[in-house]
Amino acid sequence: MKISQLDTPVAVVDLDKLEANIKRLQAYLDEHGIANRPHMKTHKIPEIAHMQIKAGAVGINCQKLGEAEVMAQAGIEDILITYNLMGQAKLERLQRLAHRLPRLSVVADSPFIVQGLSRAMEEAGVTLTVLVEFDSGSNRCGTQTPEETAELARLIARSPGLRFGGLMTYPSTAKTDAVVPAVKSLLAGDGIPLERVSGGGSPNMWEAHTHPAVTEHRAGTYVYGDRDLAASGAVTLEQCAFSVITTIVSRPTAERGILDGGSKTFSSDHSGKGFGLVVEYPEANIYKLNEEHGYVDLSACARKPEIGERLTVIPNHCCVVSNLFNQIVGVRGGEVEVIWPVACRGLLQ
Amino acid sequence: MKISQLDTPVAVVDLDKLEANIKRLQAYLDEHGIANRPHMKTHKIPEIAHMQIKAGAVGINCQKLGEAEVMAQAGIEDILITYNLMGQAKLERLQRLAHRLPRLSVVADSPFIVQGLSRAMEEAGVTLTVLVEFDSGSNRCGTQTPEETAELARLIARSPGLRFGGLMTYPSTAKTDAVVPAVKSLLAGDGIPLERVSGGGSPNMWEAHTHPAVTEHRAGTYVYGDRDLAASGAVTLEQCAFSVITTIVSRPTAERGILDGGSKTFSSDHSGKGFGLVVEYPEANIYKLNEEHGYVDLSACARKPEIGERLTVIPNHCCVVSNLFNQIVGVRGGEVEVIWPVACRGLLQ
Repeated sequence: MKISQLDTPVAVVDLDKLEANIKRLQAYLDEHGIANRPHMKTHKIPEIAHMQIKAGAVGINCQKLGEAEVMAQAGIEDILITYNLMGQAKLERLQRLAHRLPRLSVVADSPFIVQGLSRAMEEAGVTLTVLVEFDSGSNRCGTQTPEETAELARLIARSPGLRFGGLMTYPSTAKTDAVVPAVKSLLAGDGIPLERVSGGGSPNMWEAHTHPAVTEHRAGTYVYGDRDLAASGAVTLEQCAFSVITTIVSRPTAERGILDGGSKTFSSDHSGKGFGLVVEYPEANIYKLNEEHGYVDLSACARKPEIGERLTVIPNHCCVVSNLFNQIVGVRGGEVEVIWPVACRGLLQ
Repeated sequence: MKISQLDTPVAVVDLDKLEANIKRLQAYLDEHGIANRPHMKTHKIPEIAHMQIKAGAVGINCQKLGEAEVMAQAGIEDILITYNLMGQAKLERLQRLAHRLPRLSVVADSPFIVQGLSRAMEEAGVTLTVLVEFDSGSNRCGTQTPEETAELARLIARSPGLRFGGLMTYPSTAKTDAVVPAVKSLLAGDGIPLERVSGGGSPNMWEAHTHPAVTEHRAGTYVYGDRDLAASGAVTLEQCAFSVITTIVSRPTAERGILDGGSKTFSSDHSGKGFGLVVEYPEANIYKLNEEHGYVDLSACARKPEIGERLTVIPNHCCVVSNLFNQIVGVRGGEVEVIWPVACRGLLQ
């Protein structure tokens, strides 16, 4: 089947570009001796995770327990869940997952989380590796000072059922470079080594080597690429593997076109320059979305697309877009090669 | 099972409120002799569509062909698809659907759409009812003038395989009241009646009776209710049936809490007052979302939620939120009564 025969809206991945994106980051991280642990949140597809592992990744990064369960079922053996896990339901699932996956690791940023993990793992009779998440400037989760970080590391190290695995943060920043050595020296007296320091980010991925304290890098978006990542300079628009093919379903006025994709196709993530880049008409501006309609201002286009014409859109943020599709179509040279279910879509727990 | 035992994040519908919302709008439209055709985009759940029909709705409104296919399979007999359908793949599916569903109707806003529908229906040997979509001020799809509307109506009326079914617009506005009589008189000479005039909207639903030309009303959001609809005044916050229960997974600072729901849970639809209302802490502000994290500013809360505490969030826009979940939990009096798969989620074609 040819791409041109796919009904729209459809999410398409160019497999040549996908493979090149995987290879390019792997080669760079290999060159600098940094472990590669891609974040599967972008694709949520086990086969792509396997492609990343086969290319040289040490394992993968999941954000949700449900994602890790699916990836473990698919044969991925080394998984880091970068999320505070708590509550009876999740801790019971984590017990089962830890049993079958010796190379599972998780994070914690508070004694509350550590205590819950410890009780569950002790009860299950397994040892789980736990990294301390520290805040490197995102002002999201994470311990706030080297002292707090070291204290939590000590708590993990002495907690039954747990093993201290190092530090985790997002993204890798200048603050990362300051915090890690400080924590290291605080822990040196206790004989607690920093086995692993996991940093991350796609916009900053080519600077991973400038953070000497970071031993592994987690990037998600790099695998597909999107308009925001291209705007950051980390990829070119031509390297973006992921796009949504749409159709102009209405041309109500001379300057307005309506696409068969809206906020349930592209999400509402806005880049400041509309809701996506129209490849065939870069002057077109997707200026508004309803749930199933995209409003396109065509006034700047010398030639304007006609009703029924297909437009390829590079979304602003591919991670939230792939999450809206039930399947992703892998294409090569204009031909459909594979159709992947987005296996981890909607696994919010 | 009690609500308190559900793992988070979880989308919950209060069944008493849901039933009251369905009944309230039905009673109002009945009182004014306006047909009720609820838009299933909000819930995407066949059983809720059946509840709406049982309460008195004449049929339902779908936005996508795939939604209509699922609803037809579930036994819904009267469906209006308010979307321009085109292309071989969709027209072949529409042929099959029209065969099994005599009360199917669709819309068109251009000769291109009408011609495609006519060719397909003639080939299939069925007659499909087609309404003309006109633009009542949304500046989205739709014919632009009464003359254009009447001309398209005439084209439908004389097209093999098609039957002119009236007019459709969204939302019902003052312009609707002006356009409909104008089209009516333009068509009077041709002996073409306006059998049905379908308007819609939830924010404006209690004003449906002020648009005398409108014979049926399509509302979607009313069934669940959300923060935006409450802000419009059409429902109260207490009437909102839909919420997402989340957990505080991190309290990194004295004034910041992090929820286990982000843009893959709440969407990025922003109301100007954050990304949702925290029922237990109305002074809390969900000021930022990452994919799986919600950032909450707790500085205005006298008492602040602790890590592990569960927070109920009324989203800004329930339609895009329910679309992110695989299932919705129906509860009554604190007990789980039903778990509904979101059957039409992700059916983008």
